[in-house]
Amino acid sequence: MKKFINGTDQVEDQMIQGMVKAYPQYLRKLDSGNVVVRANKKEGKVALISGGGSGHEPAHGGYVGEGMLDAAVAGAVFTSPTPDQVYEGIKAIATDAGVLMVIKNYTGDVMNFEMAGEMAEADGIKVKQVVVNDDVAVKDSLYTVGRRGVAGTVFVHKIAGAKAETGASLDEVQAVAQKVIDNVRTMGAAIRPCTVPAAGKPGFELAEDEMEIGIGIHGEPGTYRDKIKTADEITTLLMDKILADIDYTGSEVAVMVNGSGATPLMELFIINNKVADILAEKGIKVYKTLVGEYMTSIEMEGFSISVLRLDDELKTLLDAKADTPAFKA
Amino acid sequence: MKKFINGTDQVEDQMIQGMVKAYPQYLRKLDSGNVVVRANKKEGKVALISGGGSGHEPAHGGYVGEGMLDAAVAGAVFTSPTPDQVYEGIKAIATDAGVLMVIKNYTGDVMNFEMAGEMAEADGIKVKQVVVNDDVAVKDSLYTVGRRGVAGTVFVHKIAGAKAETGASLDEVQAVAQKVIDNVRTMGAAIRPCTVPAAGKPGFELAEDEMEIGIGIHGEPGTYRDKIKTADEITTLLMDKILADIDYTGSEVAVMVNGSGATPLMELFIINNKVADILAEKGIKVYKTLVGEYMTSIEMEGFSISVLRLDDELKTLLDAKADTPAFKA
Repeated sequence: MKKFINGTDQVEDQMIQGMVKAYPQYLRKLDSGNVVVRANKKEGKVALISGGGSGHEPAHGGYVGEGMLDAAVAGAVFTSPTPDQVYEGIKAIATDAGVLMVIKNYTGDVMNFEMAGEMAEADGIKVKQVVVNDDVAVKDSLYTVGRRGVAGTVFVHKIAGAKAETGASLDEVQAVAQKVIDNVRTMGAAIRPCTVPAAGKPGFELAEDEMEIGIGIHGEPGTYRDKIKTADEITTLLMDKILADIDYTGSEVAVMVNGSGATPLMELFIINNKVADILAEKGIKVYKTLVGEYMTSIEMEGFSISVLRLDDELKTLLDAKADTPAFKA
Repeated sequence: MKKFINGTDQVEDQMIQGMVKAYPQYLRKLDSGNVVVRANKKEGKVALISGGGSGHEPAHGGYVGEGMLDAAVAGAVFTSPTPDQVYEGIKAIATDAGVLMVIKNYTGDVMNFEMAGEMAEADGIKVKQVVVNDDVAVKDSLYTVGRRGVAGTVFVHKIAGAKAETGASLDEVQAVAQKVIDNVRTMGAAIRPCTVPAAGKPGFELAEDEMEIGIGIHGEPGTYRDKIKTADEITTLLMDKILADIDYTGSEVAVMVNGSGATPLMELFIINNKVADILAEKGIKVYKTLVGEYMTSIEMEGFSISVLRLDDELKTLLDAKADTPAFKA
């Protein structure tokens, strides 16, 4: 295993410390563990908390700031945060307006966030939640009942975070978060695996001529494995599955072409070239495109495409000001 | 070679097309080739042009927009753009205030930009230039006489671009660009090579226990090769060399921890954790830190650290508004 680390047992702590030292104007780390909250707590609005295992950077700490999250909880690499961690995060950010938990659909995440939510409610904090399940690749998977929550989660952070800044109620913020979830679909592929530092070896193996279609953000198995195809062919495969799942006809959409960690931006742009052509052919209008690393899988070489169907409310909230380490609008 | 591409002869064209399709609100591609300019030309200010070989994305097209560049020229991967390309870019963006060329110090880049500048001057366009040479790793290298121009170039784009937006003269914009160059130093390291698509195999080889210290952004040889060390040790090696080159004592600085393409953000934060500690120990105050992929080397697994000594003018210009695909402030 070849990585820029100091010791496998220091990865998460030193990463969070390095993130907070880079962005003290945005982030503060709680004394109780790897939970980052806004450097300046904002009262009078619904507070948003998200998180999950580490290894998906800039998710989720990179999205803490004005217009997005109030707290991000970082578990060990590819491991759900504990209920205590999430509970500490909720307590740190709670306002009278309440707290919305944005949970990616993994069994451990859902269980631990829900437990934390119950602990906070016992303290008198209003807590609601949404569960993101945007991945159309597989119905159930290694760590999940139902569809997995992947890069589309970043759209939930952005849009629900913007809604919260308007002073909307907890019910309203939850409703718009759910609207994003109902309208976003994602699918990914990979050609090289990633190595969890504590494991010391890749989570799966792919031959030099193989790709995995429908891969999860932890390298968990996808839809199928095949000989590698061209970027245009792979993109078409993923887009066919995404576009079959929602009727985007006549809609305006936001697109995210997300790199898994080791995919050059050059290749993500080549992929977007085909995504844009496919959408144009189908008369689906692209309102905004994001190309970059938004929800990674350590150094997996892969990508995902997310397509979000927009209405006027979602467009306004997508464009609203965001000022966080990893997302500015 | 395993990449998300369609054909090795289509990489640059499809990348630029995919970039422009992602960001039509920012970018327009010239008909004459792989040159991107601002979607909306701004008159009455000095126009900035930069560029170089492709493979460094988001550099340079990602920095075209308000507060940074007016044009970016993309040569073939790791290959200088032609004088004609640069000349077309200059003509497209030229204003009465003149054009500043921001050139990274590689022999081919300098020669071809200078030739283009002369062609434009023959047309009556005012053209000046700066040459960025921030890499302290080696004095001369495979492609360069003198120090190489690397990630510190992004600080030149940001600060000179902000100065140009104020309506400053060409001499003033050139002067502040040169001030950045005089005050920024960079050094990098890598643990895995990258593959130029047209070459089909890695540009160099490193054993599973080896690293290259002082590597260039095209994978060209660095200062030396050694057994891999911890992130803290490698960071200390690079910082020692950077801090020995300028007396940063008592200064405020901006820091950039730049990923080479395949280095997980997790590891860049671990590196920044040590960078911040080293600067704090020496009493050098960090004004702003950037951690991410700013000047990549396709999918090389490596990073560089840049340290820029700031004064009040540079701080103001660093903080000024920038609105580009890859850099917002």
